[in-house]
Amino acid sequence: MIKLKHKDNSAMMDLFFKPKSVAVIGASGTPGKLGYVIVKNIADSDFAGELYPVNPKSDEILGYKVYRSLKEIPGDIDLVVTALPTPKITVATMEECAGKGVKAVIIESAGFAEMGGEGKVFQQQIVDIAKKNNIRVMGPNCSGIVSRDIVTSIYPMTKKVPKGNVVLIGQSGLLAAGMASDIVENESLNISKVCSIGNKCDVNENDLLEYFGNDDEVDVISMYLETVSDGRKLTAIAKKIAAKKPVIFLSGGRTEAGAKAAMSHTGSIASNSRIVETAIRQTGMITADDFTELKDFAKVFSTQPLPKGNRVAVITLAGSVGVNVSDLCANFGLELPKLTPGTTEKLKDMFDTPVSNPVDLYFSVTKIGFTKTLETTFPDAFRDPNIDAAVLILAGFEYTQEAVQKKIIQKIVQEVGKPVVVCMIVGYNKYKNVIMDEMGKELPVFPSLISGVKALSKLCEYGIRKQKLSA
Amino acid sequence: MIKLKHKDNSAMMDLFFKPKSVAVIGASGTPGKLGYVIVKNIADSDFAGELYPVNPKSDEILGYKVYRSLKEIPGDIDLVVTALPTPKITVATMEECAGKGVKAVIIESAGFAEMGGEGKVFQQQIVDIAKKNNIRVMGPNCSGIVSRDIVTSIYPMTKKVPKGNVVLIGQSGLLAAGMASDIVENESLNISKVCSIGNKCDVNENDLLEYFGNDDEVDVISMYLETVSDGRKLTAIAKKIAAKKPVIFLSGGRTEAGAKAAMSHTGSIASNSRIVETAIRQTGMITADDFTELKDFAKVFSTQPLPKGNRVAVITLAGSVGVNVSDLCANFGLELPKLTPGTTEKLKDMFDTPVSNPVDLYFSVTKIGFTKTLETTFPDAFRDPNIDAAVLILAGFEYTQEAVQKKIIQKIVQEVGKPVVVCMIVGYNKYKNVIMDEMGKELPVFPSLISGVKALSKLCEYGIRKQKLSA
Repeated sequence: MIKLKHKDNSAMMDLFFKPKSVAVIGASGTPGKLGYVIVKNIADSDFAGELYPVNPKSDEILGYKVYRSLKEIPGDIDLVVTALPTPKITVATMEECAGKGVKAVIIESAGFAEMGGEGKVFQQQIVDIAKKNNIRVMGPNCSGIVSRDIVTSIYPMTKKVPKGNVVLIGQSGLLAAGMASDIVENESLNISKVCSIGNKCDVNENDLLEYFGNDDEVDVISMYLETVSDGRKLTAIAKKIAAKKPVIFLSGGRTEAGAKAAMSHTGSIASNSRIVETAIRQTGMITADDFTELKDFAKVFSTQPLPKGNRVAVITLAGSVGVNVSDLCANFGLELPKLTPGTTEKLKDMFDTPVSNPVDLYFSVTKIGFTKTLETTFPDAFRDPNIDAAVLILAGFEYTQEAVQKKIIQKIVQEVGKPVVVCMIVGYNKYKNVIMDEMGKELPVFPSLISGVKALSKLCEYGIRKQKLSA
Repeated sequence: MIKLKHKDNSAMMDLFFKPKSVAVIGASGTPGKLGYVIVKNIADSDFAGELYPVNPKSDEILGYKVYRSLKEIPGDIDLVVTALPTPKITVATMEECAGKGVKAVIIESAGFAEMGGEGKVFQQQIVDIAKKNNIRVMGPNCSGIVSRDIVTSIYPMTKKVPKGNVVLIGQSGLLAAGMASDIVENESLNISKVCSIGNKCDVNENDLLEYFGNDDEVDVISMYLETVSDGRKLTAIAKKIAAKKPVIFLSGGRTEAGAKAAMSHTGSIASNSRIVETAIRQTGMITADDFTELKDFAKVFSTQPLPKGNRVAVITLAGSVGVNVSDLCANFGLELPKLTPGTTEKLKDMFDTPVSNPVDLYFSVTKIGFTKTLETTFPDAFRDPNIDAAVLILAGFEYTQEAVQKKIIQKIVQEVGKPVVVCMIVGYNKYKNVIMDEMGKELPVFPSLISGVKALSKLCEYGIRKQKLSA
């Protein structure tokens, strides 16, 4: 058991994320049942502590000895995970947890405040027991944690969670269920922990922001919230954390229609959108507009260096795409500066007209080929001191595949040390697997121009803010 | 040869799109060369007329007899396609075309107005010859036409163009090159013709809008323009056409940065964005913001019926996604009305709380399974008289695949007769092929919530306008 010298937030959160012993109440030996999936997910994770399935009617589940009740478990228990059929039994279990001296409980069952009426009463009973006994509760109505160290979600995981640098937290079962599994399976984002906090009757975004904000292994925090538990506290914590690392925020219920929907989802009146907007503005959090952006922006922030400004080079092979991206850059607050005379002079033989921005590589490609262009013309433009970042537009052709497999783009981006977003304009389906496998871990690749430019604009926004903070 | 009884626009455009005889000047027998690709593309299309490759040094290309010059060709020629190395030779060829009585020429070569200086002079010479001899010219600096009947693009096509109901036109070589090939290969959009008009020294958007507007086989027109050739004429024609069928418009160079980029792309000062905006507002054209939207919106418009209003049902299996989509609907001007008491009463057993909108199918799925829910609960909500359209959010799970393969969603959407956009929230990669193969032709499927909601909002905008026009 983890010894709590100081009952600080970090030590308490460690009980959830790094427990030495876990009991699963409602454990089941029947594949497909939720209580089975939870035990299997924990067993399949790197969790190396004591795992105690609890079920009054079983003897063994997946090779683990089953206990009739919490009381019967011989050792101390850092974390209890419950997926019980009714709120009433869940409340009774909270009493048992208190009796056993448990300090951390994840309640995955639904049927509480989000249902209104009696559900609210049951949730209050849980809060009362927790307060009285210094128990921290995650949930109810949540999927808990998906991480390398422990997986409490009710969604079967097929691969181990990476040891990544991104955490996702939020009021969405989907995050820690289908979405986490999807990310892990596709290796689309280098996550380390996903945490679904449901009705957040106790553990909330502030606890997690502080915890992950102080965790040096976490570089990016993505967060989905339908309610803000304590606006003033969120603003204070987020301001401190967002000055250190990016906090990407998708606010659910920011419109009247969304707020109504949120009410029936997590049972609470959605946060006043003005409070949320103020918090975002004051703290420097980055706003996302949907779940795809929540992941996409995290991808950009977790793989790319921060730019010093918003001066972008648009690198294209098709003139019309350069025009469209220029428009999008202007719409999203990015500038397309002229390249310096030094670069223009150096590159004059590689262009049929004086090189401008967008940098249309077409002539260079016809002259020296695609691979050579990527090795020489592109980095010369990218290195230009007027340039902070680049949008690189690729078409899925055979020669693109070749260049990607040779890691040419990846190496140059790393060497130049400026951020890049890659947008695929055609051939995404055909070469997607190669491109994602070979390049998709190091560089953010977008299937549309808007999504890539918008993501880069967020990185620049944050980079400029950080520059000002450190000035 | 096509006999021109009346030299109207339609008959002239038929020379380009339905020629009975075509000469390719600069034809080549060397695979990979542009003059080879053009001949091969025409040969591989459904073109059944006379094909005359022209090259002073060859005898046979791909089984076709080669002529030394236009003059030597025995019959009349409806269409000449040129891909010559220099503007100067191209001008000389225009004189030969005049001598031969040719009335339609596609000039694919670059090096004209987009280069400024001498290029502008050469382009003017072409215009002068064309005017004097009543020749219609498409280009220069274009990729010409990709269609079932003829393919003049320099991009190798691997499949035949479908006999679709969507046309794409615009000032972008990419459209008729990589993008057309990509669409045809992936069957992602039911196109019939793609036309790249380049510098549009003669044939322009107004000619094509009128031509396709009067073509009953064309249901949707997507258009990319960097310049408006004649704003007043565009407004007049587009107003007439957009009242009959949707015209989706991506304007390139609508910002200062974009306008600068456009200048070096097609050699003309981009249209004043206010003129373009006025034209769009007055005519009821639909605006797209990037090339993906140009295709996505066309997909929605070409597969879905028009809604009578903007009242949307959001159908989800995850509460948080319902909240997010509700917010997005509000942002894009869509309403989420209450369902009528009739529906609520009918469905009361399928929901744990009274059915609301977003319609969260989770309880119904746990009760009667996913397939049965799609067959009964979903259509009951979708049929509600308060509902004009639906956003259906699917997760890529095994049971989704099953339902898609059984064509359950497709059948219900067809039977109810209201438009639907499908958004995939997780599992898109895993089940993409099945979903796109089985459902992707009949229903628009989006990889993000924003893209789906935005596309539906455009359909509703147009549906409401049509309602007003017909009232």
